Amino acid sequence: MRIPRHIGIIPDGNRRYAVAKGMSKEKGYDLGIDPGLTVFKLCKQYGVEEITFYGFTTDNTKRPREQRLAYTKACIDAVRLLTNEDADLLVVGNTESPMFPEELLAFTKRNAFGSGRIKVNFLVNYGWEWDLNNLKTLNDGRKNITKNIKSNDISRVDLIIRWGGRRRLSGFLPVQSIYSDFYVVDDYWPDFKAEHFTEAIEWYQSQDVTLGG
Amino acid sequence: MRIPRHIGIIPDGNRRYAVAKGMSKEKGYDLGIDPGLTVFKLCKQYGVEEITFYGFTTDNTKRPREQRLAYTKACIDAVRLLTNEDADLLVVGNTESPMFPEELLAFTKRNAFGSGRIKVNFLVNYGWEWDLNNLKTLNDGRKNITKNIKSNDISRVDLIIRWGGRRRLSGFLPVQSIYSDFYVVDDYWPDFKAEHFTEAIEWYQSQDVTLGG
Repeated sequence: MRIPRHIGIIPDGNRRYAVAKGMSKEKGYDLGIDPGLTVFKLCKQYGVEEITFYGFTTDNTKRPREQRLAYTKACIDAVRLLTNEDADLLVVGNTESPMFPEELLAFTKRNAFGSGRIKVNFLVNYGWEWDLNNLKTLNDGRKNITKNIKSNDISRVDLIIRWGGRRRLSGFLPVQSIYSDFYVVDDYWPDFKAEHFTEAIEWYQSQDVTLGG
Repeated sequence: MRIPRHIGIIPDGNRRYAVAKGMSKEKGYDLGIDPGLTVFKLCKQYGVEEITFYGFTTDNTKRPREQRLAYTKACIDAVRLLTNEDADLLVVGNTESPMFPEELLAFTKRNAFGSGRIKVNFLVNYGWEWDLNNLKTLNDGRKNITKNIKSNDISRVDLIIRWGGRRRLSGFLPVQSIYSDFYVVDDYWPDFKAEHFTEAIEWYQSQDVTLGG
């Protein structure tokens, strides 16, 4: 079986899930923590080497305060849970803004927890413009870009799985996603089922990797 | 009806189509010219304001010589055909490489043909790394990026339609595609049917535009 080396997770639909269940929107985020841990364990079991979670973005911070507090707390809790696992953990995002939770500052250098076998990247207050704004005019092409973006410790993503039905990247790692295969699950993220993951891996079997060639 | 202001066209599957019809791979590119003209006319009819065609990329130039010559010729022919239409036409790509056809140099400044009502961008010897490598370290965020990429005359893409079943961007305008909705047609590009386009527009009706918010 061909296993993607690096999987990106876009866990969308938390608010729509909450509304569908008659809850207020911000209640959805907490329900996304367990799915995150489950998908991490599935990745480990399948031998995936690197996984990147789309926590929240600088775009997201324009949302109402109670939502902002709720998704920030969910990200903090999720990162803390991952410290109990075998994860080589890094939080990536703009730490210079007040929207970055200080509880996660300690995680902005990569740290191995447990046996640290899987690289886990967690995007927190991440912005595509923040990421790209560091580029230099060195004119040495592709390597210049991948080395000089702020997220340079995150490698090329092979497979992106997005929950919640939207077929868009919404600013997720534009450089690392250049050649990624993109799989969309219609169910909302809090409705995560292991089958979503295994179906995405199955679908990935039928994709070739050409890197644009 | 909600019409995307800017549509990106990824016309993939020319070689697979040719092979499926018992032809050699390079024969597929010529068969992609008519679909391009048809989709242009559909865009005009629907009131789309801007359309970007993914001609060929710097990645593609690694392909065998006969394929390279064939897709280059198809791009030249397609651009020439568009000069007979109402198109405000611009060819965007790395002109400093020998892979850029000199026949298209005259089109690398925007020119209005006919009544020039639709902006048409045609990517020729385009490379995402070439596009991004121009960025400066001005630290003024999003505007810095959109103004300083080489493709700065191409605006944000609302809807990308890709033919040939692959669910990936393959380097297509990474900055302008940050928030794009992405619609995939399984049929190969030479098998283009107007229904592909109208179904994509119909699907687009059910998408919201949040720009990551």
